[in-house]
Amino acid sequence: MTAQSQLDGLIAQLLDGNRRAVARLISVVERGGDSADKVIHAIYPHTGNAHLIGITGPPGAGKSTLVNAIAKAFRAADLTVAIIAVDPTSPFTGGALLGDRIRMSDLYGDKGVFIRSMASRGQLGGLAQTTADAVKVLDAGGFDKILIETVGAGQAEVDIASTAHTTIVIEAPGMGDDIQSIKAGILEIADVLVVNKADRPEARNTVRALRNMLQLGGRSQDLHHGRLMETVPVDTMENAKWEPPIVETVATQDTGIDQLVGEIGRHQHYLQTSGRWAVREAQRSWREIERRVVANVLGEISAETRQSLTDAVASRQLTPAAAAKMVLEMEVAK
Amino acid sequence: MTAQSQLDGLIAQLLDGNRRAVARLISVVERGGDSADKVIHAIYPHTGNAHLIGITGPPGAGKSTLVNAIAKAFRAADLTVAIIAVDPTSPFTGGALLGDRIRMSDLYGDKGVFIRSMASRGQLGGLAQTTADAVKVLDAGGFDKILIETVGAGQAEVDIASTAHTTIVIEAPGMGDDIQSIKAGILEIADVLVVNKADRPEARNTVRALRNMLQLGGRSQDLHHGRLMETVPVDTMENAKWEPPIVETVATQDTGIDQLVGEIGRHQHYLQTSGRWAVREAQRSWREIERRVVANVLGEISAETRQSLTDAVASRQLTPAAAAKMVLEMEVAK
Repeated sequence: MTAQSQLDGLIAQLLDGNRRAVARLISVVERGGDSADKVIHAIYPHTGNAHLIGITGPPGAGKSTLVNAIAKAFRAADLTVAIIAVDPTSPFTGGALLGDRIRMSDLYGDKGVFIRSMASRGQLGGLAQTTADAVKVLDAGGFDKILIETVGAGQAEVDIASTAHTTIVIEAPGMGDDIQSIKAGILEIADVLVVNKADRPEARNTVRALRNMLQLGGRSQDLHHGRLMETVPVDTMENAKWEPPIVETVATQDTGIDQLVGEIGRHQHYLQTSGRWAVREAQRSWREIERRVVANVLGEISAETRQSLTDAVASRQLTPAAAAKMVLEMEVAK
Repeated sequence: MTAQSQLDGLIAQLLDGNRRAVARLISVVERGGDSADKVIHAIYPHTGNAHLIGITGPPGAGKSTLVNAIAKAFRAADLTVAIIAVDPTSPFTGGALLGDRIRMSDLYGDKGVFIRSMASRGQLGGLAQTTADAVKVLDAGGFDKILIETVGAGQAEVDIASTAHTTIVIEAPGMGDDIQSIKAGILEIADVLVVNKADRPEARNTVRALRNMLQLGGRSQDLHHGRLMETVPVDTMENAKWEPPIVETVATQDTGIDQLVGEIGRHQHYLQTSGRWAVREAQRSWREIERRVVANVLGEISAETRQSLTDAVASRQLTPAAAAKMVLEMEVAK
C-alpha cells in the first residue's frame, strides 16, 4: 500500500467518524509538509460544522478541570467533544502528558471525547498554524464542540484561543497579592468570563474587579481583530451587542458549570442570529490566508538573519525598504 | 535641472535645516514611488536622533490644544519641534486644515516649529507607512522632538502612535455617560497618561478610574508589541520597571503642562538608561521591515480579490494554503 493510499484510507476513516484516524491524521498535520497539505486539502470541504470554543487564562486558574467539566456537560447533552490543550511552554507534543492522564480518568472510555496535547516545537506562529490544522481534522471528524485550551501567557497564545467562535477567559481569585494576572488585552477578547474557585473568600473581589474593568473598558467589540476588521466588511445587519457575562464556577465540584454551558450556548445562538458567525468565519479565513503568506515569506528567515537585518536597520546602515527587499529576494531565490 | 538633481538639492537643503525642503520632501514621500524611495535611502543614515512622541486619545479630549501646549513648552526650552497630525478619518492631506490654522496662530512665525497634517488616502496600513517616512524626513531635518498625534479610534491608529519612543494617551472627563472611551488596549500602550480638562468636576472620577485600571490591568509592559517581542530579544539588562504616571492638565490654561513635559523627559531618560531605547529602536526597525514585506506581498491585492479569496476559504471552496499560494503567485507574476 502506498503512502498516498494509506493517507486516503485514513481520511475516509476520519470522515466516517473513526477516532483512531483522528489521532493519526493530527500527527500527520503536526509533522507538516506535503502529506499535511494533502490531508487539509482533502478534509477542508468537510469542515465548518463544529462550534470552536477557545479557553484561556493564567496558569493555576483551573483551566484543565474546568475544560473537563464543560466537556462532561456537553457529553450529558449527547454532544461529541474534542479538547486541544495547547502548551507553548512545553517541548512535548502528541503524547499523553500527565495533565491528560489525570483528565482522561474523568472521561475515560467515552468514545465521544477526544483529548490531545499540542506543544511548541520552535516558534509560536507555527503552533497557531498547527493548532488551526488540528482543529480542521477534528471538525471534519464530526466533533460538535472543539475546546481549544491555552495558557494565557502572552498575545500570541491568546491569538490561538481567539480564533475560536466563542472565547472563554478564566480568572481565579487570590492569584497573588492583587489580580495582576488580569490582562487588559485578555478581557478584550472574552465572550464569556469565568471566575473559577468561586468558593474562595477573595472571589467576590475578583468578580467586582472584572465587572468594573468591563464597565470601564467599554469593551470595544472586535478591537482585537485589529486590521482584519478593516478588510472584512462587518455585517451591517448586526445591531445586537453582546455583553460578556461573568460566570462563577467551582470546577472541582461542578458548581456553575450548567450556567457556563448555558452562556456558551447563548453566545453561539447570538453569533448565528446576529450574522456574526459568518463574520468570524470570514475573519478567521483571511487571518489564516495572511498568516500563511507571511509565514511563507518571513517564516523561513533564520533568527540570525532577522537579527542582523534588524540591527542594520536600527543602526541606519540599511533602510527598512532595502531590508524588506532582501527578505523578498531570499524568498524568490529559494 | 533634472528631477534627480532637484531631489538631491532638496535633500541637501533638508540636512542643512531648511524648513521649505522639509515640507517638499514630505510631499515627495507621501506620493510614494521611486522618488520617495530615493529620498528615504539618502536621508535614512541621518535619522535616529529625534525623540519620537506619540499622542493619542478620543476625539474631543483636547489633543490638538495639548499638543500645542507641549510644543510651546519644548520651544521655551529651546528645542525644535515637529508635529504630525494624523487623521485617518479625513480625506485631506498635506494642506493647512482648519485645525492647523487655529494651531498655527499660537506658534505662528516660529521657525523652530513645523506642523503637518496627514490624512488617509485609502488604507490605514499605507498611512502608517507614510507617517513613518514623514517622521524620517523630520528626523533628518534635525527636529529634536517629533510629536505624532492620532485620533485614537482603533487599533491601527494606535499602532501609528505606538511606534514612538514615548506614547502619551489622553483622556478627558465627561466624554459620555461613563468613560466608555477608555479602551483597555489603549491603556496598554500608554507611557504617560493625561487627564485633560482636569478643572471639570468629573475629572477626579476619571483619574481614579484610570488609576484602578492601571492597578487592575497589571500593565503587561510591551504586550502591545505582540509577536515583535518574540523575535527581538529583550535587553536582559533591563530590570527597572516604568509605571505610567497620570498627569492632570488644563491645556487651554497651560495648567499641568510643565509636569507633563517633565514626565516625558523622565521617560526619555528611563529609556536611555535602562537600555530600552535601543530595544524600541530594534522593535520599530523589525516592525517596519515586516510591514514593508507584508505590504509588498499583500498590499497590492485588490479589495475585490481579497474578498473573493476570503469568501472562497470561508465557504470551504478553497483551502487557506491554496489561497495563500494564489496570493504569492500573483506577487511573482508581477
